[in-house]
Amino acid sequence: MLNASVLEYLESHRREHLSRFFELLRFPSIAGLAGGDGCERAAEWLAGYFRKLGLQAEIVATDGRPNVIAEAHIAADLPTLLIYGHYDVQPPDPLDAWRSEPFEPVVRDGCVYARGASDSKGQLFAYIRAVEAWRQAGDAMPVNVKFLVEGAEEVGSPGLEAFLATHADRLAADAAVIGDSEFFNPSLPSITYSLRGLAYVELTLKGPVSDVHSGLHGGAVANPINALGRLIAAMHDEAGSVTLPGFYDDVLVLSDAERRTWRRLPFDAEQYAASLGLTELAGGEKDYTVLERRWARPTLDCNGIVGGFIAAGAKTIIPSEASAKVSMRLVPNQDPHKIIEGFKRFVAEHTPPGMTATVQAGAEARAVLLRSDTAAVKAAVAALADAFGQKPAMIRCGASVPVAELIQRLLGLDAVLMGFGLPSDNVHSPNEHFRLEQLWRGSIAAAAMMQNLREPEL
Amino acid sequence: MLNASVLEYLESHRREHLSRFFELLRFPSIAGLAGGDGCERAAEWLAGYFRKLGLQAEIVATDGRPNVIAEAHIAADLPTLLIYGHYDVQPPDPLDAWRSEPFEPVVRDGCVYARGASDSKGQLFAYIRAVEAWRQAGDAMPVNVKFLVEGAEEVGSPGLEAFLATHADRLAADAAVIGDSEFFNPSLPSITYSLRGLAYVELTLKGPVSDVHSGLHGGAVANPINALGRLIAAMHDEAGSVTLPGFYDDVLVLSDAERRTWRRLPFDAEQYAASLGLTELAGGEKDYTVLERRWARPTLDCNGIVGGFIAAGAKTIIPSEASAKVSMRLVPNQDPHKIIEGFKRFVAEHTPPGMTATVQAGAEARAVLLRSDTAAVKAAVAALADAFGQKPAMIRCGASVPVAELIQRLLGLDAVLMGFGLPSDNVHSPNEHFRLEQLWRGSIAAAAMMQNLREPEL
Repeated sequence: MLNASVLEYLESHRREHLSRFFELLRFPSIAGLAGGDGCERAAEWLAGYFRKLGLQAEIVATDGRPNVIAEAHIAADLPTLLIYGHYDVQPPDPLDAWRSEPFEPVVRDGCVYARGASDSKGQLFAYIRAVEAWRQAGDAMPVNVKFLVEGAEEVGSPGLEAFLATHADRLAADAAVIGDSEFFNPSLPSITYSLRGLAYVELTLKGPVSDVHSGLHGGAVANPINALGRLIAAMHDEAGSVTLPGFYDDVLVLSDAERRTWRRLPFDAEQYAASLGLTELAGGEKDYTVLERRWARPTLDCNGIVGGFIAAGAKTIIPSEASAKVSMRLVPNQDPHKIIEGFKRFVAEHTPPGMTATVQAGAEARAVLLRSDTAAVKAAVAALADAFGQKPAMIRCGASVPVAELIQRLLGLDAVLMGFGLPSDNVHSPNEHFRLEQLWRGSIAAAAMMQNLREPEL
Repeated sequence: MLNASVLEYLESHRREHLSRFFELLRFPSIAGLAGGDGCERAAEWLAGYFRKLGLQAEIVATDGRPNVIAEAHIAADLPTLLIYGHYDVQPPDPLDAWRSEPFEPVVRDGCVYARGASDSKGQLFAYIRAVEAWRQAGDAMPVNVKFLVEGAEEVGSPGLEAFLATHADRLAADAAVIGDSEFFNPSLPSITYSLRGLAYVELTLKGPVSDVHSGLHGGAVANPINALGRLIAAMHDEAGSVTLPGFYDDVLVLSDAERRTWRRLPFDAEQYAASLGLTELAGGEKDYTVLERRWARPTLDCNGIVGGFIAAGAKTIIPSEASAKVSMRLVPNQDPHKIIEGFKRFVAEHTPPGMTATVQAGAEARAVLLRSDTAAVKAAVAALADAFGQKPAMIRCGASVPVAELIQRLLGLDAVLMGFGLPSDNVHSPNEHFRLEQLWRGSIAAAAMMQNLREPEL
């Protein structure tokens, strides 16, 4: 059971913390868009908050968005916990699909609606509240804590590998926890032990030197949009498998035991489809279950496409060019760099006559598979059971949190992905929200995990 | 030879007419874009100009953009010539590819650069100059003239069929001429005797109810962009033929004689490709020559495509929807309505599971084949030879000028397509321009054609 004073502090500061949370949500901290100082302002706010709690905090500039490091060293004989979060968020587009302003948080039906509320300012804030409660109300902090709050997670953490390598000593810890994951469902808390990786590319096909009249030239000039359509179509076969050369070469095969475990999870595919407004789940490979396809099989999805005349009305042209943004989600043992090389080779081999193709490589992140038998996982399991009254499930997740693999590889720690999001939070979508109950109980779980780390026998 | 006073008037009014032409070009008369009054202002300017020349002019409102009708009745025993032009223009996008402002005309290297300079304000203005010269300087107008200046040609003339039917008596004439076509090359004046038709559609595929996270859902949710790519790809086979049901059923087969004639035209495919910045002409059906494919074979081209995240940067989503604008160029005997029905059937049959498709039908225009043995064609041939010193070629054109078929069907006239554009004018593209020499000599040809109509024996 969590220390009573800490629990009391958390319960009695809800109103004040909600105001602070709103302050953090108001920063349009979109790492993926050029211009604006939303990221910088969010980083300053965080550093200021950490300092108010008595932590040593520093904003560390990078080539991209700044990261925030903060530390409270209590005693040499206490375990040190590294807490990771990110303050940057996805762009809010399409704006007209939001019921309220993405950067002006509001509470509706027990949820805070704002871009980043769930992914992952809300989850980060649960950990901050836990540290605050221990410092202000606890007898003593049960752990030394270090925070690493990143500013470029949503664009694939481009500089994070170098950053962790540079600051490895400073970030050294006995355990790490990441607040950027979801429960399996609202009543089943979860610890995520594997995440997919990412390879992001942008493909452009160029045809005629400028847009040309589709009547005068149609039939003679190859059309970049039609050609891009063919190229995209050729990237999957009839069975839904990706056709890029070598795409599946290194894929870690799922064990029968793992597949059996997942089949026992309370997953309702129809309900899941309905939650997305779909009558049918038609993506991915035919030979795998929906969870297997989302969690443990690599995918290729176009994230955006544009070419020619896209305003309202009509314009009869063969456009000069067309381009698509493509994300590939990778599974353990796949090498993002090798995958992007395969993508480039595929494009080179399939670029039709009369067309020039360019592929611009974007973010890369390896998938990760984390140990489930560590003291930190045990502390987290007990903490979640304490806070939510339900033993957590061990699950995978199809999204990418590049830091998990980097912490494993560069800091030698198998982090615990103990996040408080729910699948219905609309992360990366309009009307993103975070259930307040997840914030309140998540803070309890975070505080309890710290206590359990000091007292693993309890 | 053209009447000397008329010729002298045209030569001595170049400077003044260039200023008037610039006034007309400054109106952003884009029928295809909602908002703005560029079309209405252009129509008013034209009506005012016609009235200054002593014509009876009227702006006739329609459901869309207004049309301008003007008339000068000289004598009952003179033939009546109907002159068609359009004042509306294509949108200027992409704006950043223009060397000067699209609606602020400038002269560079003997050409006027502006959107609509060649297509077709410049060509219309040549006919207006001809009428002006006859009225101000000639002994007497050799013909009665009627002008029909349309305001929605570039969006497929949606209301023109009803308009011509309503005003058939008022527009009745002995001959018709259309100033909206091109020379075969700069030294070969041409009369166009066939134009392709048009069927325009917009196709939208909808998947999940909103954009969703490509990591969390990739592998389960079918992606509308990927699906649209497959759908577009499936619309052509390996030989470059269109696969829509019934697409070729009614196509008028080319005669061997016509194919032979075209092979004798001074067409240099390499030079044509180079003019478009291409090393290869890879569009269309393999079994036809480039001219055959452009002039007498139907095509299907995507004019625009958009879906998902298209700003700079990265966003990892499966988008809620993706859509494409598609123009199909039709040849004689194809029925645009039937073609659009075939498109809809194809989409219905090929819409993948997990996706909803909608097809919005746009403009429709039939292709046209015009008689080449009329008195009006003879008058035009002699006039072009007079003005340009070269007997014109009889050619086809791949573009659509819906009015030609409508004049044939509703007014019973096989119009003469005597236009003064050049293939290098960048119509529908950035940096559209019109060679001033084409304006000056085109005006002479237009004036001479009127004279020849009165005196067919000359």
